[in-house]
Amino acid sequence: MAGWKFSNIKDGSMGEFFHVNDADMNLALLPDEIPLETAVMIPDMVTTGLHGAEMADIQLGATIAVIGIGPVGLMGVAGAKLRGAGRLIVVGSRPICVEAAKYYGATDVVNYRDGDIVEQIAKLTGGKGVDAVIIAGGKPEVVAQAVKITKPGGNISNINYHGEGEFLPIPRVEWGSGMAHKTVRGGLCPGGRLRMEMLIDLVKYNRLDPGKLVTHVFKGIEHAERALLLMKDKPRDLIKPVVLVE
Amino acid sequence: MAGWKFSNIKDGSMGEFFHVNDADMNLALLPDEIPLETAVMIPDMVTTGLHGAEMADIQLGATIAVIGIGPVGLMGVAGAKLRGAGRLIVVGSRPICVEAAKYYGATDVVNYRDGDIVEQIAKLTGGKGVDAVIIAGGKPEVVAQAVKITKPGGNISNINYHGEGEFLPIPRVEWGSGMAHKTVRGGLCPGGRLRMEMLIDLVKYNRLDPGKLVTHVFKGIEHAERALLLMKDKPRDLIKPVVLVE
Amino acid sequence: MAGWKFSNIKDGSMGEFFHVNDADMNLALLPDEIPLETAVMIPDMVTTGLHGAEMADIQLGATIAVIGIGPVGLMGVAGAKLRGAGRLIVVGSRPICVEAAKYYGATDVVNYRDGDIVEQIAKLTGGKGVDAVIIAGGKPEVVAQAVKITKPGGNISNINYHGEGEFLPIPRVEWGSGMAHKTVRGGLCPGGRLRMEMLIDLVKYNRLDPGKLVTHVFKGIEHAERALLLMKDKPRDLIKPVVLVE
Amino acid sequence: MAGWKFSNIKDGSMGEFFHVNDADMNLALLPDEIPLETAVMIPDMVTTGLHGAEMADIQLGATIAVIGIGPVGLMGVAGAKLRGAGRLIVVGSRPICVEAAKYYGATDVVNYRDGDIVEQIAKLTGGKGVDAVIIAGGKPEVVAQAVKITKPGGNISNINYHGEGEFLPIPRVEWGSGMAHKTVRGGLCPGGRLRMEMLIDLVKYNRLDPGKLVTHVFKGIEHAERALLLMKDKPRDLIKPVVLVE
Repeated sequence: MAGWKFSNIKDGSMGEFFHVNDADMNLALLPDEIPLETAVMIPDMVTTGLHGAEMADIQLGATIAVIGIGPVGLMGVAGAKLRGAGRLIVVGSRPICVEAAKYYGATDVVNYRDGDIVEQIAKLTGGKGVDAVIIAGGKPEVVAQAVKITKPGGNISNINYHGEGEFLPIPRVEWGSGMAHKTVRGGLCPGGRLRMEMLIDLVKYNRLDPGKLVTHVFKGIEHAERALLLMKDKPRDLIKPVVLVE
Repeated sequence: MAGWKFSNIKDGSMGEFFHVNDADMNLALLPDEIPLETAVMIPDMVTTGLHGAEMADIQLGATIAVIGIGPVGLMGVAGAKLRGAGRLIVVGSRPICVEAAKYYGATDVVNYRDGDIVEQIAKLTGGKGVDAVIIAGGKPEVVAQAVKITKPGGNISNINYHGEGEFLPIPRVEWGSGMAHKTVRGGLCPGGRLRMEMLIDLVKYNRLDPGKLVTHVFKGIEHAERALLLMKDKPRDLIKPVVLVE
Repeated sequence: MAGWKFSNIKDGSMGEFFHVNDADMNLALLPDEIPLETAVMIPDMVTTGLHGAEMADIQLGATIAVIGIGPVGLMGVAGAKLRGAGRLIVVGSRPICVEAAKYYGATDVVNYRDGDIVEQIAKLTGGKGVDAVIIAGGKPEVVAQAVKITKPGGNISNINYHGEGEFLPIPRVEWGSGMAHKTVRGGLCPGGRLRMEMLIDLVKYNRLDPGKLVTHVFKGIEHAERALLLMKDKPRDLIKPVVLVE
Repeated sequence: MAGWKFSNIKDGSMGEFFHVNDADMNLALLPDEIPLETAVMIPDMVTTGLHGAEMADIQLGATIAVIGIGPVGLMGVAGAKLRGAGRLIVVGSRPICVEAAKYYGATDVVNYRDGDIVEQIAKLTGGKGVDAVIIAGGKPEVVAQAVKITKPGGNISNINYHGEGEFLPIPRVEWGSGMAHKTVRGGLCPGGRLRMEMLIDLVKYNRLDPGKLVTHVFKGIEHAERALLLMKDKPRDLIKPVVLVE
């Protein structure tokens, strides 16, 4: 939770200098060749999205679905490709995100505006479903949808922060009445120096370019409000804005 | 599902001889020293209960809860001990099952008649909860209870056949809004020759005595109805009846 | 071992029709869009090389070495990239294989003709070594080299058939006198319908092109001898020959 | 390595008070009911021996061999039982250790003075070998013996400190020329507060009594030399001596 504390509880993270405890465990060296706006994706969008792929326990050639293709979901797509997914179905609708999803490895796109996504994915897969689902968006019922489209023995990996509802529903029948070996897990992304160094290497050795997520770059802290409003308004050309401070 | 087919679909399993496909994969040799009434527990109660412990991914010294201590739950208790659980809390009420649970390794007993089991287990563990839960009984809301009593990072392992309700509820807040790494899985027990040979060795080398489950033994197929009625009526002295046919 | 039997013991595999037992478990459908010379790589080079990456248990961004870049080693390189390796060091010398290794994801090339590979890799990694090694060639002492270049906690994954020597040596000191958690494993590649379908999907969805391995294609069984001689003589432009029979 | 530093590098560990860094991560509370001489086994013999069983990845009912039944090996035996081993073959000769091995769960005893242990274990298992081996003693060739008695697909887990020899030999033929999926691993035991608390629970809840290891208890630091000489001379009635200091 250390990362969360920096952005929510601990004072001074916007200061010129600030205190990092156990720096040897928490600070990684950024190579010069990685642009700052790309770098800032690594300890947040990248580690979260990739963790979705890790929890999905993807086997080489597996068919994977990613529900939600905002910045985190897009890194879930990239993570699924990086773990060796074969077919990679994404669920989303914003054109700029769909385009980015294809760039990061999506092979099929399902738009929830075209009908029930469970039925659409059943049709796409000849009724078989997928080996694993990464949930990166949606309301509580997205968990039910994910279980429904997963094959027996498959995994549902949640990296979506669920902010509403009392329960996330596992559909009884499609969970095989408890007998289908469909595993539901979810968790906060890992952090720390070693993790960051490994993710930096993915960027450095051209395995992953998180830069594609950054559609708007501002220079100067005075643009922070404008950037925040962008995230609220979500114009058509936005994935993620970054504010660089000298 | 092969085992399930024998008892539900395939004809002849009550005959003097019957057909087993891929016999080399499905038939194991029973050593003479294991009584028949003990043996008959192995491919059903034992493999199911132990699978609950396997899916719980128990670490040495972990604190485990088993909800439901019918025959399958009792083998879940035995399985948790066999995987190296430390503290082992069971939830149940029938005296003969509580006694058997202690025999198989339970260290603490919670009776749902004494109040909310979530609160009782919170009190027992000083508010920390348990490392894993094996669900071997209960209505759909047992899944919510299990998630509530599990520590972040822990496992919920379901071996209960859920026969009612549309959804099994994961409680949002106690699931860390999706961030708590609490894994929910559930599945049918494994079968096959190799599995049975390994379970037989557990009995043969005195690691496990499933015989304690068998409270009533009948000789002769003519007692089948009486045995079935016992399972329906559940007298105080019953755990599991067996009918032996010469 | 079923695959091995077809090429070594079972008669008829060169016939117009031949017998495959448990066909549902062993035969996969080849999509029209995959050329035959590419397809024939899948159940041999591809599954073996990728299994090397699987046994190496590669974490996202890990630094991996592949020793030996013949056709199997090249698929080990591809497999390491497919599992999410960051830096990827290969050991080899034949120019056409070095070029192919770069195509499949190698970031650094070490030539054993330039000196001791252990020292070269130590220098490349600032003395840290690599997270895992895939052994796809070499004499028995390659195991010692692999252990030496692996970090504590890392994996050595062998897919090389060792045909000579009484022992494969684990170097005592670099194995931490047994305390360094360096795991040595090795095994024959998995086969079967499900595996092949998943590997086919890797090709179908453009995650992997094994076609680059095939440098020579002959049409007609009468060219078999010429193809075999190519494998013996290893001309500069050879990686793998294929003979297609109508 | 923190534990090792306390006993080998860091000054003051014999003082009345001494410095422990990151105490919250490294100090666990000892319950009153565990005697001191039992407790002192936990962070050394117990965690090491049990780690041997953990690295062996024991499945329920598996057949396990433990080579070497000094104090660490005996905890390997206890660990194998705690993970659910079925048959449990130990290799040793000292009568007091053999007796303790049986107490901790051994089902069969092999004495290397009665002939080649590889042949003896082959005979005991009808030529099949064992599912995993824990190495807790022996010279470098013990690794070769362990590989030879392990089934394809099995694990060799080393917790023995190897102090001599340049190489530990993996026998090529019995390793399936690299194709047999026999995994060789070895490592230093884990430490830390959480681990210790879990091991303490094993003792507290009567899953394990390491007290049986302690054959000699001395009170007062002035007996340290006598205790050390015991470990050197190994009288017939010794497993482990403990010196308690008020």
